[in-house]
Amino acid sequence: MDYFQESLNLHRSLKGKIRVSPKMDVRSKDDLSLVYSPGVAEPCRAIAENPDDVYKYTIKSNTVAIVTDGSAVLGLGDIGALASIPVMEGKAMLFKRFANIDAFPICLDTQDTDKIVETVKLIAPVFGGVNLEDISAPRSFEIERRLQDIGIPVFHDDQHGTAIVTLAGLLNGSKLVGKKMEDLNVVINGAGAAGIAIARLLKAVDNPDSPLATPVKDIVMCDSKGIIHSGRDNLNYAKKEALEFTNSENKTGTLKDALVGADVFIGVSMPNLMDRNDVATMAKDSIIFAMANPVPEIMPDEAKAGGAAIVGTGRSDLPNQINNVLGFPGIFRGALDARAPRITPNMKLAAARAIAEHIREPDFDRVIPPTLDEQVAWRVADEVRRVAEEEFGKYE
Amino acid sequence: MDYFQESLNLHRSLKGKIRVSPKMDVRSKDDLSLVYSPGVAEPCRAIAENPDDVYKYTIKSNTVAIVTDGSAVLGLGDIGALASIPVMEGKAMLFKRFANIDAFPICLDTQDTDKIVETVKLIAPVFGGVNLEDISAPRSFEIERRLQDIGIPVFHDDQHGTAIVTLAGLLNGSKLVGKKMEDLNVVINGAGAAGIAIARLLKAVDNPDSPLATPVKDIVMCDSKGIIHSGRDNLNYAKKEALEFTNSENKTGTLKDALVGADVFIGVSMPNLMDRNDVATMAKDSIIFAMANPVPEIMPDEAKAGGAAIVGTGRSDLPNQINNVLGFPGIFRGALDARAPRITPNMKLAAARAIAEHIREPDFDRVIPPTLDEQVAWRVADEVRRVAEEEFGKYE
Repeated sequence: MDYFQESLNLHRSLKGKIRVSPKMDVRSKDDLSLVYSPGVAEPCRAIAENPDDVYKYTIKSNTVAIVTDGSAVLGLGDIGALASIPVMEGKAMLFKRFANIDAFPICLDTQDTDKIVETVKLIAPVFGGVNLEDISAPRSFEIERRLQDIGIPVFHDDQHGTAIVTLAGLLNGSKLVGKKMEDLNVVINGAGAAGIAIARLLKAVDNPDSPLATPVKDIVMCDSKGIIHSGRDNLNYAKKEALEFTNSENKTGTLKDALVGADVFIGVSMPNLMDRNDVATMAKDSIIFAMANPVPEIMPDEAKAGGAAIVGTGRSDLPNQINNVLGFPGIFRGALDARAPRITPNMKLAAARAIAEHIREPDFDRVIPPTLDEQVAWRVADEVRRVAEEEFGKYE
Repeated sequence: MDYFQESLNLHRSLKGKIRVSPKMDVRSKDDLSLVYSPGVAEPCRAIAENPDDVYKYTIKSNTVAIVTDGSAVLGLGDIGALASIPVMEGKAMLFKRFANIDAFPICLDTQDTDKIVETVKLIAPVFGGVNLEDISAPRSFEIERRLQDIGIPVFHDDQHGTAIVTLAGLLNGSKLVGKKMEDLNVVINGAGAAGIAIARLLKAVDNPDSPLATPVKDIVMCDSKGIIHSGRDNLNYAKKEALEFTNSENKTGTLKDALVGADVFIGVSMPNLMDRNDVATMAKDSIIFAMANPVPEIMPDEAKAGGAAIVGTGRSDLPNQINNVLGFPGIFRGALDARAPRITPNMKLAAARAIAEHIREPDFDRVIPPTLDEQVAWRVADEVRRVAEEEFGKYE
């Protein structure tokens, strides 16, 4: 199947992939008087009196904004707001499909951090949550951080969604190869939004003492210039910050140097960066999550030829697809249902565990659930909600 | 029927009145690959190469933002963004119901003119049009004016929607009472967004030479302090500007003074301001459009007792309901289909004429079509589109 031409045709025939529909028909004058003037004044008054009632009478309790500035869209890069719309529409479809959430694309005609932060605050009233999407690092870190206190969950999926699903795969994968999480030496190639978020989550940087945390032993991060170490003078603030919890031995060199003896390779970078010889230098029974899209850092056959025990990619046509779809719908569902004001590190860990535990008997070609498994999101939602209620109290 | 309690119950059971849905099911891996990664990259690339293709492949061509700051909501006043959401959801339902337009509420947590203007510009990429709603005058004038050049139609419905439907009623009403439009002396009570827009449209201020224009003879505007005249020192800039095309004799006094000898009274103000004795001072066969909601400036029976020939109100339970629903769905439908960059004065006049002409045989209790007449919006859309294509050329 030629996905590209078919997809173009499909988009053209649909003229956009989502619609906004009334939940009830407006046929009679009475209908009109109830959903609009004069009846609508009553819920308005109720909310004016008690702002919290907005969750009772409006779409806020089930509505998420998918916010992008079009600066880092898929593998296409900085294609801008207009060209990003098809991706955001697709994401909205998945929110509905997997978690019955009403999501709407907000594609911003600016890449200025301050303006993005302000705009999200200004449009927040109608939304119960904000999914930041395809915003380039390191701006995405700052934008997300500055939006954590606006009272609704703001979650950059390219960071945390990817990190959560990766951790889920690693929880099952490490068990399968008989290694403990705390003994794993991990190499992450790619120090953008996803890479750094994966490192934070695998090291439980934000909640080291959580009973849910199972931090790995050490992580060496690489970018296009090789290993990130303290001697580098070309590091942005996010990479510098990452040095506080990665590369404890301050290794230097290239990706290939980093791989020697490593238990796990996690790629969120570029196609075709390594071959079987590189994998052969890793520890026995290595785990490879090569998630560059659509062509991974190394193909599964090649990785296995080098000795890898478990290989995952981002592709739907290969085993162990590491796909954010396993994460974000259930995470937002749980957060919305708990009325959590933000998505905490413990909620992320709970989501990763729920995904991992959804597979009763993991095997080497099945360390995480299939992307289209409809049960995953609801299981994730339950766990995320449970942890959120522990942290923020139960909302009645 | 107790609309208020019923409406509250309805809003609570629906938890918001609109939903966002996928236009197709995502069941298989192939589906996922077409609507999302990797296939979605193709329409993204096409739009990045040719930005105009956004109308071909995304929801933009059929999507309208309903933007408010919650400063002038229904008769409730400045209740803020959260409390305005039920009204904006209701409006979105009507967009869909009458013109198959996907509309989404954007309720802004600011009442600062500059911030509103900037936010609308920043969120514009995904929208094919912007319906400004329930923003208080005179800020609404400036906001709308400053957004006229952003490339998509920006239309403040409280101004122009009301003006268009009022003009439609007056076109039929004046014929019925045997008076020519150009002979009419009109009193408008209420000098907010609606009142001033009605005055502009009835005087064809923005396109005096248009073949569609049928300006009335004179308009006297009143606000809560009486007739607006050049001797007043408490006028905002919009009211001052209105003096350039109203009150040509520079009358002074109260609303009651203004009514003496007038052919038409148009109320967009407060309940119960006048009685039969006031109407009796007007010219013979007067026309009264008393649109204060839910209680009009004068009730039809009372107005008729004073000698009024035709009475319209904003109410669905009385004859001649002057309701914006007759205007905005078709106006946006026509503008979207023509890909018009803005909604021009001629498009507004065309809409008013289409609404008026939709009634083959107007009578005193039927100067405009019933609010729920499904044909009106499509007739309006055809005319608006035709005029837009004359003005901007035909979009292929």
